[in-house]
Amino acid sequence: MANTFGTLFTVTTWGESHGPAVGAVVDGCPPRLPLTPEDIQVELDRRRPGQSDIVTPRKEEDRVEFLSGVFEGRTTGTPISLVVRNADQRPAAYDEMRDKFRPSHADFTYQAKYGLRDHRGGGRSSARETVGRVAAGAIARKVLALAGGVEIRAFLTQVHDIAMPADALAAFPSLAEVEATAVRCPHPETAARMIERIKAVRSEGDSVGGVIECRVRGLPAGLGEPVFDRLEADLAKAMLSLPATKGFELGSGFAGATLRGSEHNDAFEVRDGRVRTRTNRSGGTQGGISNGEELVFRTAFKPTATILQRQATVDTAGAATELIGRGRHDPCVVPRAVPIVEAMTALVLLDHWLRHAAQNRTFTF
Amino acid sequence: MANTFGTLFTVTTWGESHGPAVGAVVDGCPPRLPLTPEDIQVELDRRRPGQSDIVTPRKEEDRVEFLSGVFEGRTTGTPISLVVRNADQRPAAYDEMRDKFRPSHADFTYQAKYGLRDHRGGGRSSARETVGRVAAGAIARKVLALAGGVEIRAFLTQVHDIAMPADALAAFPSLAEVEATAVRCPHPETAARMIERIKAVRSEGDSVGGVIECRVRGLPAGLGEPVFDRLEADLAKAMLSLPATKGFELGSGFAGATLRGSEHNDAFEVRDGRVRTRTNRSGGTQGGISNGEELVFRTAFKPTATILQRQATVDTAGAATELIGRGRHDPCVVPRAVPIVEAMTALVLLDHWLRHAAQNRTFTF
Amino acid sequence: MANTFGTLFTVTTWGESHGPAVGAVVDGCPPRLPLTPEDIQVELDRRRPGQSDIVTPRKEEDRVEFLSGVFEGRTTGTPISLVVRNADQRPAAYDEMRDKFRPSHADFTYQAKYGLRDHRGGGRSSARETVGRVAAGAIARKVLALAGGVEIRAFLTQVHDIAMPADALAAFPSLAEVEATAVRCPHPETAARMIERIKAVRSEGDSVGGVIECRVRGLPAGLGEPVFDRLEADLAKAMLSLPATKGFELGSGFAGATLRGSEHNDAFEVRDGRVRTRTNRSGGTQGGISNGEELVFRTAFKPTATILQRQATVDTAGAATELIGRGRHDPCVVPRAVPIVEAMTALVLLDHWLRHAAQNRTFTF
Amino acid sequence: MANTFGTLFTVTTWGESHGPAVGAVVDGCPPRLPLTPEDIQVELDRRRPGQSDIVTPRKEEDRVEFLSGVFEGRTTGTPISLVVRNADQRPAAYDEMRDKFRPSHADFTYQAKYGLRDHRGGGRSSARETVGRVAAGAIARKVLALAGGVEIRAFLTQVHDIAMPADALAAFPSLAEVEATAVRCPHPETAARMIERIKAVRSEGDSVGGVIECRVRGLPAGLGEPVFDRLEADLAKAMLSLPATKGFELGSGFAGATLRGSEHNDAFEVRDGRVRTRTNRSGGTQGGISNGEELVFRTAFKPTATILQRQATVDTAGAATELIGRGRHDPCVVPRAVPIVEAMTALVLLDHWLRHAAQNRTFTF
Repeated sequence: MANTFGTLFTVTTWGESHGPAVGAVVDGCPPRLPLTPEDIQVELDRRRPGQSDIVTPRKEEDRVEFLSGVFEGRTTGTPISLVVRNADQRPAAYDEMRDKFRPSHADFTYQAKYGLRDHRGGGRSSARETVGRVAAGAIARKVLALAGGVEIRAFLTQVHDIAMPADALAAFPSLAEVEATAVRCPHPETAARMIERIKAVRSEGDSVGGVIECRVRGLPAGLGEPVFDRLEADLAKAMLSLPATKGFELGSGFAGATLRGSEHNDAFEVRDGRVRTRTNRSGGTQGGISNGEELVFRTAFKPTATILQRQATVDTAGAATELIGRGRHDPCVVPRAVPIVEAMTALVLLDHWLRHAAQNRTFTF
Repeated sequence: MANTFGTLFTVTTWGESHGPAVGAVVDGCPPRLPLTPEDIQVELDRRRPGQSDIVTPRKEEDRVEFLSGVFEGRTTGTPISLVVRNADQRPAAYDEMRDKFRPSHADFTYQAKYGLRDHRGGGRSSARETVGRVAAGAIARKVLALAGGVEIRAFLTQVHDIAMPADALAAFPSLAEVEATAVRCPHPETAARMIERIKAVRSEGDSVGGVIECRVRGLPAGLGEPVFDRLEADLAKAMLSLPATKGFELGSGFAGATLRGSEHNDAFEVRDGRVRTRTNRSGGTQGGISNGEELVFRTAFKPTATILQRQATVDTAGAATELIGRGRHDPCVVPRAVPIVEAMTALVLLDHWLRHAAQNRTFTF
Repeated sequence: MANTFGTLFTVTTWGESHGPAVGAVVDGCPPRLPLTPEDIQVELDRRRPGQSDIVTPRKEEDRVEFLSGVFEGRTTGTPISLVVRNADQRPAAYDEMRDKFRPSHADFTYQAKYGLRDHRGGGRSSARETVGRVAAGAIARKVLALAGGVEIRAFLTQVHDIAMPADALAAFPSLAEVEATAVRCPHPETAARMIERIKAVRSEGDSVGGVIECRVRGLPAGLGEPVFDRLEADLAKAMLSLPATKGFELGSGFAGATLRGSEHNDAFEVRDGRVRTRTNRSGGTQGGISNGEELVFRTAFKPTATILQRQATVDTAGAATELIGRGRHDPCVVPRAVPIVEAMTALVLLDHWLRHAAQNRTFTF
Repeated sequence: MANTFGTLFTVTTWGESHGPAVGAVVDGCPPRLPLTPEDIQVELDRRRPGQSDIVTPRKEEDRVEFLSGVFEGRTTGTPISLVVRNADQRPAAYDEMRDKFRPSHADFTYQAKYGLRDHRGGGRSSARETVGRVAAGAIARKVLALAGGVEIRAFLTQVHDIAMPADALAAFPSLAEVEATAVRCPHPETAARMIERIKAVRSEGDSVGGVIECRVRGLPAGLGEPVFDRLEADLAKAMLSLPATKGFELGSGFAGATLRGSEHNDAFEVRDGRVRTRTNRSGGTQGGISNGEELVFRTAFKPTATILQRQATVDTAGAATELIGRGRHDPCVVPRAVPIVEAMTALVLLDHWLRHAAQNRTFTF
């Protein structure tokens, strides 16, 4: 079940970058949810290539089609099959990759694992696979929003060495603030510098990475399962399952290792009639279970592996060779990864909500 | 299956800190593996409290008993039931916690989730649960070592703000180097400073966190499943499922976000007759699949939540109160977490090895 | 994962009887398997309506399309997405069912479970869902045939009270013998009587059930997992997951309960250089694990619930009403169920083969 | 996960017939359930050997011990570890089986699968493994009884060729009626004949099989998942996972194949204010989902494989030999299988209840 995510609300994705289509099957969706293709399209449009002048110019309409599971505008509780046809395929652009392994791509490892590979645009390892995740995530998100006003917001805090100032991170940014700039950083001055940097490296045929922060508010206490399926464990898995990710941290994260317990602990108090913590270094969970505070985590993305420079590599016959990146690509994938991070977050949270409810809310003694 | 880890080689842990015992059931172990309690005991002894003067003085023999699955010194392919009796229980020491939520512990979240909790020593949320993981990991480790000389080595690179110098990280440390100091840092001067720091904070009733690096060598290319069950995704989940962890990074990690593609990419070459990368910023995987290079990842641990200081909190009735940490505890849990990190790594790797073999090595066309 | 079958070789089906399409996603397929749409089409054609004058006249081309997972004629190890468009839809024929519960159909139970339902042709509960199973099963079957000459053969032994004579069951029938008659009974005289009976009940607007026997030869000893996932347990589940099934038995089956141990036991002997049993009342497994003998099991199908007679029922408002069956349907579904039984059998066997190989053949000690 | 049953409420069993203990880990139990060892002991006592003069004289106290998951008399929502020590072990009685394969036992297939086996009393393949199932089932049963008055009642309808008269099957028998006789057949005259037959075959060193019917009342409509995890599919799997079972049928079962649709369909009516069926040939489900009627299914058991007669067999070296059954055993296992059938039924039903609630009752739109 390597291509399936989740235990109760599950998504199975399929499809290659330059095959006929990509898609997903969503199983376990609650019935009677009002759902239209537009609910999904809005998120696909955020992920779509060609949205601004700093991302890949590949033209994809990315129109989602429902093949099952929705009847007269509502989910029926049966599997929802979602398909997005691939349109702007130029497989010939990838002919060179048939025999050469692109550095820091999955070409070599797929070959080693399977003994063959669809080399066109990375095949299954392409970020195009995330179309299915975003589509499924849009459904999960709608359930969470309708159920309890859960809001999920991801945004860029860093591109290359340009980072948002710490004090700008105090507030939960609005969707409008995030979407206001092409880099999806809610701090306009930082965003401007990020865009400038991306354009500069692109002009050199190079690429850069960055960091996405994701926050969730409106989540009840109690989600997450001890001991292996802690909420942060499943979030970490979700994030590290995304292409180009190299790290994950929750709350205080790596910096938390440099604090003392007396500085790090989140004291409890009663606020607004419920148990709250005064600070949130924990990042919204304790013992792997949500505590009702804001969920706060960050994911690090490496620079895009495809660069328009000459690189040393090896061919499938084991001979040294060179390769110059071709094909359309993003000099920085991180802005387009924002809706993907949100989608994966929604998938994790809805699945845990259902698991929690099943065990702890079905029967009361 | 919240208490089960893995898909083919699985471990299910059970037990509370101050209940009669803790243990694990291992399912899917290859048959005919020579296995004695000593194979497991050696790892439990590394994890055991009371090993040095910088860890908790709780006295636990932690003797493992096999109840099933091993016959005449070999595994039979049936479930291996492992039990470790709890010995040095002092539940009365935890009476205060029956009604008060310890800051940054799981007391509040368990209560919110389940409506009740075993308050004695944190119950199920105690790090004592990891006894079962270490026991199961010892079995996985033996399979991996016998199968192909896979070596897994974790060690401390940081305690509080004291970190190993970068150049000391070049070599794969030996087990002897790691075990030479009480903090399990293979760089003696750094280790000495770490120990000094831990003693200093302990004398103030405080605690500190740290970072563990784990490396694996001898791993073949091809382990890891696209797209959700990438090797690093499952490692990230494994690490974030450990108590007190706040972050995970692979290879270049968060620092990788500050590099350009031209700096980050790992060029391929043929070396020693096989495809190798010249550098290893990827950390041993590409596209979620092992590439035959060293696996390198780091996990951040927060400072121990239990401190011997007065802290503000709330009781179960919702009234403000104070709490002073009691009970025996580690001022820094990170040294004892080293064998646990290795155990979880072994569990992930063996499970992926079996999954890979099942799909790609059972039939050849 | 209610719509997913299998653990290592998995199929997820989706689609409703009168939605735009039905399909399946197959995950875990071994790579490099030569695979064309024709490999699948041949099995879909056996299942397809309109093959003879004793089955439903619904016209469905049932052309399968690959959307992923196959590259240049070979499987790539990534998910195979299979789609079959629904063609001859006449949803208006089902208007009456919007408000009335058809007796012994799933209309009422879907309404009770989900609070709504796609009433057109039974929606998800339609046997049209099995298109995806047959498509996936064709892939599993090809792997098993190539891997070791495993042959799976299902056929009708009974329609209504007309059964094959016991002595006709001695030999493993050929595919040609099974396909020679419209009822897929390899005993021509019995087949002729079955066809006559089906035509007779159809002329009365009625329906009949029957029994399918399935045999497998060429299977190695060792497949099946103690204790819950016994081979016969998973076969029983597979069979009872098919629409209209009421029973399953292996080997001696229910009749075995009337024998003494001394009559029932299968004595071992060495034959053709390997351990064999003299008789096969066990039906090919012992302790849930294949013993290398022929696998023999039977599945009972009830008469088709749709009949062209007036029946008492209740409408969704809870009022008593009547209903006369409409729509195109089979007076006896059993002949068309033969390729479906074979498909499910192939899915179970391949999954168990992979599981067995993973645990017992990956490492040897 | 071959030794784990269920998806949300799961049981993992472990242990061999003549190892130190057998047991189970139950995960996913709702918290706050009042639970004492006595709740479990009562069911273990029904399964225990030595209850009457027609079962094995092996003496086992079968005292269950809780090692985790219960605190101050209530479940905590964490895994419940249950252990039963093996007492009356006489492994030497099995020395002959070290080298010889007992006919119709699992000796040969375990050897073929794993390359070794614990030969003592069948090791893992022994029915002693069901101790863990009965213990876990007792917990599931308590949840179901408290939650909604669900009653599960199994009983013998047939031993060898002695069957209850059809009209005696009309009523749901009471527990007292079932437990009144040593064979657990609620029809006293039939029970007397069954006992007589069992004693007769035992005196000849032989054995007999039988059939158990299981009924459930109080179940709501809506349990069961289309399409693979139908309620009857999971019940069939549960039953065929029990040692010595050869068949399963629901409602009309195999006899249903001999009816016409007009005879078999269950007409709907409104009775007592809810939708009911007039007849129950369906056996309590339609489309794999419970319809609120009584669940009715039957399981066939073959005669005990161990007989006290000389049998031809083969030894592990592949030479023809003979074997005379030794060891203590039941001439008819079926009476002791009654609580096991009930336990497995409870496990299936509770798991499906939780799955249904998770998807369909957590959110309402």
